[in-house]
Amino acid sequence: MNESPDPAWLPPFALRALGSRRVRVTGDGPVVATVRAEVLAASAELVEDAGPVDLDLVCEPDPDGDPEAFVVERSTTTTTVRATSGAGLLYGFHHVVRKGGAAFTGTWTEEVAPRQSIRMLDHWDNVDVHPVMGQVERGYAGGSLFYDNGVVRADLSRVAAYARLLGSIGINRVSLNNVNVHRTEARLLTDLLPDVVRLAAVFRPHGIRVSLSVSFAAPMTLGGLGTSDPLDPEVRDWWERTTAAVYAAIPDFAGYVVKADSEGQPGPFAYGRDHADGANLLARALKPFGGTVFWRAFVYNHRQDWRDRSTDRARAAHDHFAPLDGRFDDNVVLQVKAGPLDFQPREPLSPVIASMPRTRLAVEFQVTQEYTGHQKHVCYLVPLWREMLAFRPDEDRAVADIAGGRTSAPTGGVVAVSNVGDDRFWTGHPLAQANLYGFGRLAWDDRLTSEQVLDEWIGLTFADPGVREGLHQVMDGSWLTYERYTAPLGVGFMVRPGHHYGPDVDGYEYSPWGTYHFADRDGVGVDRTRATGTGFTGQFPEPWRNVYESLETCPDELLLFFHHVPYGHVLRSGATVVQHIYDTHFDGNDEVEKMAATWAGQEGRVPAATFDRVTDLLREQLRCAAEWRDQVNTYFRRKSGVPDGRGRRIY
Amino acid sequence: MNESPDPAWLPPFALRALGSRRVRVTGDGPVVATVRAEVLAASAELVEDAGPVDLDLVCEPDPDGDPEAFVVERSTTTTTVRATSGAGLLYGFHHVVRKGGAAFTGTWTEEVAPRQSIRMLDHWDNVDVHPVMGQVERGYAGGSLFYDNGVVRADLSRVAAYARLLGSIGINRVSLNNVNVHRTEARLLTDLLPDVVRLAAVFRPHGIRVSLSVSFAAPMTLGGLGTSDPLDPEVRDWWERTTAAVYAAIPDFAGYVVKADSEGQPGPFAYGRDHADGANLLARALKPFGGTVFWRAFVYNHRQDWRDRSTDRARAAHDHFAPLDGRFDDNVVLQVKAGPLDFQPREPLSPVIASMPRTRLAVEFQVTQEYTGHQKHVCYLVPLWREMLAFRPDEDRAVADIAGGRTSAPTGGVVAVSNVGDDRFWTGHPLAQANLYGFGRLAWDDRLTSEQVLDEWIGLTFADPGVREGLHQVMDGSWLTYERYTAPLGVGFMVRPGHHYGPDVDGYEYSPWGTYHFADRDGVGVDRTRATGTGFTGQFPEPWRNVYESLETCPDELLLFFHHVPYGHVLRSGATVVQHIYDTHFDGNDEVEKMAATWAGQEGRVPAATFDRVTDLLREQLRCAAEWRDQVNTYFRRKSGVPDGRGRRIY
Repeated sequence: MNESPDPAWLPPFALRALGSRRVRVTGDGPVVATVRAEVLAASAELVEDAGPVDLDLVCEPDPDGDPEAFVVERSTTTTTVRATSGAGLLYGFHHVVRKGGAAFTGTWTEEVAPRQSIRMLDHWDNVDVHPVMGQVERGYAGGSLFYDNGVVRADLSRVAAYARLLGSIGINRVSLNNVNVHRTEARLLTDLLPDVVRLAAVFRPHGIRVSLSVSFAAPMTLGGLGTSDPLDPEVRDWWERTTAAVYAAIPDFAGYVVKADSEGQPGPFAYGRDHADGANLLARALKPFGGTVFWRAFVYNHRQDWRDRSTDRARAAHDHFAPLDGRFDDNVVLQVKAGPLDFQPREPLSPVIASMPRTRLAVEFQVTQEYTGHQKHVCYLVPLWREMLAFRPDEDRAVADIAGGRTSAPTGGVVAVSNVGDDRFWTGHPLAQANLYGFGRLAWDDRLTSEQVLDEWIGLTFADPGVREGLHQVMDGSWLTYERYTAPLGVGFMVRPGHHYGPDVDGYEYSPWGTYHFADRDGVGVDRTRATGTGFTGQFPEPWRNVYESLETCPDELLLFFHHVPYGHVLRSGATVVQHIYDTHFDGNDEVEKMAATWAGQEGRVPAATFDRVTDLLREQLRCAAEWRDQVNTYFRRKSGVPDGRGRRIY
Repeated sequence: MNESPDPAWLPPFALRALGSRRVRVTGDGPVVATVRAEVLAASAELVEDAGPVDLDLVCEPDPDGDPEAFVVERSTTTTTVRATSGAGLLYGFHHVVRKGGAAFTGTWTEEVAPRQSIRMLDHWDNVDVHPVMGQVERGYAGGSLFYDNGVVRADLSRVAAYARLLGSIGINRVSLNNVNVHRTEARLLTDLLPDVVRLAAVFRPHGIRVSLSVSFAAPMTLGGLGTSDPLDPEVRDWWERTTAAVYAAIPDFAGYVVKADSEGQPGPFAYGRDHADGANLLARALKPFGGTVFWRAFVYNHRQDWRDRSTDRARAAHDHFAPLDGRFDDNVVLQVKAGPLDFQPREPLSPVIASMPRTRLAVEFQVTQEYTGHQKHVCYLVPLWREMLAFRPDEDRAVADIAGGRTSAPTGGVVAVSNVGDDRFWTGHPLAQANLYGFGRLAWDDRLTSEQVLDEWIGLTFADPGVREGLHQVMDGSWLTYERYTAPLGVGFMVRPGHHYGPDVDGYEYSPWGTYHFADRDGVGVDRTRATGTGFTGQFPEPWRNVYESLETCPDELLLFFHHVPYGHVLRSGATVVQHIYDTHFDGNDEVEKMAATWAGQEGRVPAATFDRVTDLLREQLRCAAEWRDQVNTYFRRKSGVPDGRGRRIY
């Protein structure tokens, strides 16, 4: 933490369009103060009187207005941003920053409001270093920004810099600790609360409210009760008292995140209660204070018998939660992983998202690259998230609309697991900053294209416009490249068990985790049809229940997620499945080689430290992509007996 | 360590034949004192004068006699044991104990001497708890007897009980620390030496000399030199000074154990020197004091590329060491793992053992059950070790003769990795005590049958003779049972990477460790022939170089170690390879079920704690054997497409 951190997308030159201008800021409160500080940091002239200015930033409270919306109006002399809260003004300010010089020419008006009212980052940070998972679970960027070996850091200046970055892209909630709540972490809710107060104070000036992940067993482990039964009056009382104490210390506390009955975490099932009972227990404790409970839908049997082909992990969340639609209180948000399995590079939408019209739903993504290369691989994920947000589970509704409350369903939001740590580049891989940036931007407006988002990020981050073309070449298609050299056709996993980096085709095949590919000498894939398989297709509404069911209509990229097919099955491309596997794996590796060559051409255009870090990591990505190519191809060559149609080397 | 430990094979009743007898002990020294204490502990009457006795134990030093040999002479009234050292007398005493009542009837004479002069146990104990490997590397019986979390234990009474057990079976050397020498462990040689003095004092009264594993880099890491080049005068000087200090503190110190240039440990290769240069460096420092260096031959490339089928880990030790024959000093013992890979349940003999007639060779076994069920599975290993010791690499010599110095080769010995820890049963699995007992007994006399050894152990350990038949049923064939349900036909591994417990058929298939099976849809096995494979067969002398080379003569149990064959290849049994895989895996599992039933019948005949522990572990063995059966069978069913000829369930 001693090195000064990378400025990410807010280096001084990102604010250069404000440089010599006269700016007035009107309004009060900590977030408006942040805007004022930004103006000064941008070397603009902060004007206090009523005279003429270039940029007029006006916060006028209005209880009827959307506090996060803003209007920008450009007259011939002045650009005026009007908002009804400090957060709205901050967002308007950064809107102007992103527009750069164009914010100060012409005459025009823009009314801007976020498409999602909840734009949240979950941190899987541990207070104590976990013996297996380390300081940050699934973290690939060093230690935690918040915690260091058992305690909250004394110096939170790095957290303040992080909060500034998040505020600039519209993130409005942060959950401070791992959803797997261990012993010390649980105490953030009680005796470690003064440290949470300190963290909340750092995020508040950037329009960000903090949440805590809590353990459903807290009434027992922290409260000394004999039960955590959600219907027990003492349990209810404990949560009410505990929550009231939290709000006494942090009046704008956002609420709780809960992983219950999931991968060994305690939950309501132990008492024969369901997840509505569990979630509502916490919701009612939070309700008087305006808090929200984020209840994760990631509930499945993680001790499955691989021999049992009738159990299907993909079905689990829908089986558990869809029947509970309508039973959740209005301050419960059901937090649903976007795909039915677990943050794979390619999955269909979780059918839960299409099946609970009376429940607030938040779609959960993973910015941290657990299954997408551990921030050692370039893998720009915005296209993936955008595709999922734009997906229309039925003709009337896109996922972004469901989450955003623009359908009959009540308003939910979007949530993602953060990818930052105390690494000097924040994210380990410098180019992975674009994923953090892009998540915030898509959460604000899912209609932005992934190229637009990347373009914004490049423009803010790198002073030299000459890097734009090269970075688009390296990053635009990097998710699809990653998909090509890893598990084929939507079948998923094939990663090394435990850490999930690098290939191991059979690594999870005989495991209790429910993530199988069922490859044999004749074919591969998971039969999830209603006709002959697990029936998972039936969890989707029309048209997808039939589109996925039929081999004729199932999209190729999800073929093996839904069907077990022979290696000779012919794809729309005209290639057989096995030849497709060979081709994509050779292609994916070749694309990484091109990436590396393109990146090499950026030397001198990007800061040397960035250049060197990315160059080193591309070397590892090349090694790993070749390993994926060779292991996957060899595995299927040995199993199918089919030689490569183009005679390339398979081992 | 608070529970009183299991008495293992020396409970009071094991000495009952001495109970009421008059015994005289003549001689001096710490080991003779131990014999005296044993006599008293056996409730015998210790006679001091020259009158008639039942048992006369006489130690009369004779510099020309084998200090470990003894003579037992039975007259009509007295059994007399004569030895020329305390150790010989101790061994004679326990010989009498094992004979029981028969030692005191008839008239007869026996001259007894060990077949191996070096009978050594290596402890892979760490002083500091290693973050991955724990307190004892590959230990399955709790913590270390010697160390507890960074320090040598203050209370060594448990070590004394262990030394007594080892002395009773003739072990005469113990190495105190892990061959992977980490930072704290390295300091046993220098500033922690006073603790080694304490440990040596505990072992000495039982005829056991202690050794230390040392790091080849010690002159740098401990001595602060810039090099550990074996030809550097300063390095030589450092080792001489350090070794002299060790002997000043422990005059009967046995010597050093070295794992060099192996799995990341430092070694002479870094300086362009060979392993004779490395070993002789230490040997010359030890020579003036009568010490020995045990130099491990476990040198191979552990970062192999799985794609490269020409590199063969099995060849590595012979490739490295055979050319050095004749170059090692006479106080170097080359410590060679019995098999060419790594303690698998079935391997051929390491060809190194047949190829270095001018080098002292110690054969290394693994009593700790790294690859044989982690002391959760019953796996009586004496038949395996006996088979390897009896193996005749050529017509004239058995392995036991080579190690024992009964061929033209100079005298070596046998070494094994210990299986004990601070578990109350010493070995985790109570029946695994028989492996420790049996190793000592075979090291003393490899001509004992494994049934004889087990019979001795049962008779000493369990008071009720009714358990004898059941325990033979459970244990005699347990190694072959384990082999049946794990990797087939000598191909090895197929274990979970890292910890090596439970099945993972492809777990090491695409790894850098050099342990592959090369299964594809047509066949399985490693071609190590000279004709078409890696040429490993050529490292054996006649007749084995040709026996293994030919499919016609290669023993079935090693078929896949030496050959890649189609699944339809017909074994001597008449079964195809794939049907053999199915049959043995169903059989192996069925045998464990029978084991469990037989064990259940021992209730009341063995101590309740022993019964319960073994019963619990058999439950786990059953679960794990079924997992092996199903994963291996499913893997080969999916790959080969061949159904089970008997229509049993394969998933």
